[in-house]
Amino acid sequence: MKVVHLSRPGLRIGLLGSGQLARMLALRAHSLGHTPVVYGGSPTDPAAQVTHQHVAGDLNDIGQLESFLKSVDIATFESEFLNADLLKTLSEKTGTPLYPEPLSIALFQDRLSQKQLLLSAKLPTSDYLAVSTFEDLETAFERFNKTGLVLKKRRFGYDGYGTFIVKSKKDLAGLKTLLEKEAYGFIAERFVPFKRELALSAVRNHRGQVIFLPLVETFQKESRCFWVKGPVKHKKRADLQKKISKLLRSLNYVGIVAFELFEVGSELLINETAPRVHNSAHYSLNALSKDQFQLHLEAILDFELHPPQLISKGFAMVNLLGSSGDAPYLGQVVHSQLHWYGKIDNRPGRKMGHLNVLATNPEEALKLGLKDLKKIKL
Amino acid sequence: MKVVHLSRPGLRIGLLGSGQLARMLALRAHSLGHTPVVYGGSPTDPAAQVTHQHVAGDLNDIGQLESFLKSVDIATFESEFLNADLLKTLSEKTGTPLYPEPLSIALFQDRLSQKQLLLSAKLPTSDYLAVSTFEDLETAFERFNKTGLVLKKRRFGYDGYGTFIVKSKKDLAGLKTLLEKEAYGFIAERFVPFKRELALSAVRNHRGQVIFLPLVETFQKESRCFWVKGPVKHKKRADLQKKISKLLRSLNYVGIVAFELFEVGSELLINETAPRVHNSAHYSLNALSKDQFQLHLEAILDFELHPPQLISKGFAMVNLLGSSGDAPYLGQVVHSQLHWYGKIDNRPGRKMGHLNVLATNPEEALKLGLKDLKKIKL
Repeated sequence: MKVVHLSRPGLRIGLLGSGQLARMLALRAHSLGHTPVVYGGSPTDPAAQVTHQHVAGDLNDIGQLESFLKSVDIATFESEFLNADLLKTLSEKTGTPLYPEPLSIALFQDRLSQKQLLLSAKLPTSDYLAVSTFEDLETAFERFNKTGLVLKKRRFGYDGYGTFIVKSKKDLAGLKTLLEKEAYGFIAERFVPFKRELALSAVRNHRGQVIFLPLVETFQKESRCFWVKGPVKHKKRADLQKKISKLLRSLNYVGIVAFELFEVGSELLINETAPRVHNSAHYSLNALSKDQFQLHLEAILDFELHPPQLISKGFAMVNLLGSSGDAPYLGQVVHSQLHWYGKIDNRPGRKMGHLNVLATNPEEALKLGLKDLKKIKL
Repeated sequence: MKVVHLSRPGLRIGLLGSGQLARMLALRAHSLGHTPVVYGGSPTDPAAQVTHQHVAGDLNDIGQLESFLKSVDIATFESEFLNADLLKTLSEKTGTPLYPEPLSIALFQDRLSQKQLLLSAKLPTSDYLAVSTFEDLETAFERFNKTGLVLKKRRFGYDGYGTFIVKSKKDLAGLKTLLEKEAYGFIAERFVPFKRELALSAVRNHRGQVIFLPLVETFQKESRCFWVKGPVKHKKRADLQKKISKLLRSLNYVGIVAFELFEVGSELLINETAPRVHNSAHYSLNALSKDQFQLHLEAILDFELHPPQLISKGFAMVNLLGSSGDAPYLGQVVHSQLHWYGKIDNRPGRKMGHLNVLATNPEEALKLGLKDLKKIKL
């Protein structure tokens, strides 16, 4: 592996992906004194706009990826839907470390191995069955007949894409073609009638320190994150954190990881998890002494980690989701801090930016954020 | 003038200059949804690193400057040492508005007209005389014989460069050659034995709203800003703000302006002023609900202005000044937020970055910042 002089500014930090998550990582890399090098997409993509170091390339092109990794000191990514085997090989060949490591990418990108991981760490999650054939799905439907089930593609699902709710035999029949077409298979989970959705991010560095961001409530609209507010108190938080720490240690995980949670009765069940910076922690750009992007970079550079401090008693984040396809209209927001992603095209459902608000409590922050949202037409 | 659709993201905001102030303006322009286009310097300069839109060019090259202004929607700058006449002509010719306007640039860039401006608004400042010849200097020395005087170049002085303290006849004699060489002349000010130095920034938009940032204490080491802490309370603040508002209105000033102050007895005297974002307000990146870079951009885009909220009861900013010329060593800071400027060469006295700290009071914040400073070797 390359020797990375962590205490020298000007490290070339490779970012696989050119969307908003890579953009916010790149902006933070700048203030930390390093050079973000963005890989993929076009020069007008969100992340490519904020650095003079952009490399066009395909995430599956071995040659391009290899020369990119050769050209940087350390690399990370914004999406776990990567070819983990290829990255493992190229990281070893070029000597450029990539975090979280390809092994973690592989385990988290597949909903089946993700479930197995959670169970191995005794982390609470909904019951599930692996589904490859229509017969498997019928078995799952029998098993979860009281509640219905949620069918999820094992790979490449996000924001509701690749997720199907099955409540009736009719729903079941409608999925036959889908099952036959999908290469990577599915999992079927028991449908969980949750009270609300929460989220929690953890960060671990090389030397094994683990810190947590505040627990937050998240609200989805049409399967996309609409708003987040916090901090949230919950009795099960400490227990969850203990088990998450253990899981990360067992994986020798390095970087940030996000857990999406269902609150069910007095329990917290883990719904999904992602080995990367996450929409549910964007509030951290304004509400914490250090944001998730910085914490992730500090973790992969093996800085000492300290729990970030809350800057206000309440905070909220409101996503700016495309709706019309027309040119965006950004009126002036009064209470919030705007974070725009610089996307050229406004498209229905597309995450175009977000608003962060601080206030004396979470509810007030959300109220102010939603008020400001009215100033913006997408 | 070009019609600037303020509510459309993707405005091309031209930034004259490629140093750290332009860098921080560029980073903020990104999150506001606009495209910073950096003019001048090299592609590895601090501001050029953080955008894919950099134009090499000289600030005095008419043709280059004209095509740059043509290519952007609106422009601003990081240093007032510009050719104001040229910018006025080219702004009118290209229809691209530039703020603060060239007239303000001209008035503020010259220490003599700056003094006249302050007096016209009845703003307190030290006594002065214009100095063109050695005889003028002798006259000033007689006039300020009790206190000594400070000789300042009318133009292009900064960080102590172009400033000379004259306490004795020997000091006087040593300045003869300098006086003969300098084209733009000098002012001689009565030397003021201040208790401490303070600073205050004001922001005014097109529609005439004026807001102020917190009053802060600044401390200079070898004529360069070393640290800033705040907020500071002062009885004369309200009166000063009233007069500054009046001055800005009379100039139809648009943008941010910084006032460096001497605290003398119970008075606040204005020492110098700069029509731009300023080192004394870098704390705002972490200590205010909106930082000076955002407020300046919002002012020139004629957004409604609201006084920024303090995020903590105390804050401090510590400059990271080059000293050795060796490659910088950045150990991990624990209490502060690092803002590194990405300068390639470390040079003695060069501003390489800064640390921002929040704490329960200004003194504690400064203490923590100075503690973190020890982790860094420049």
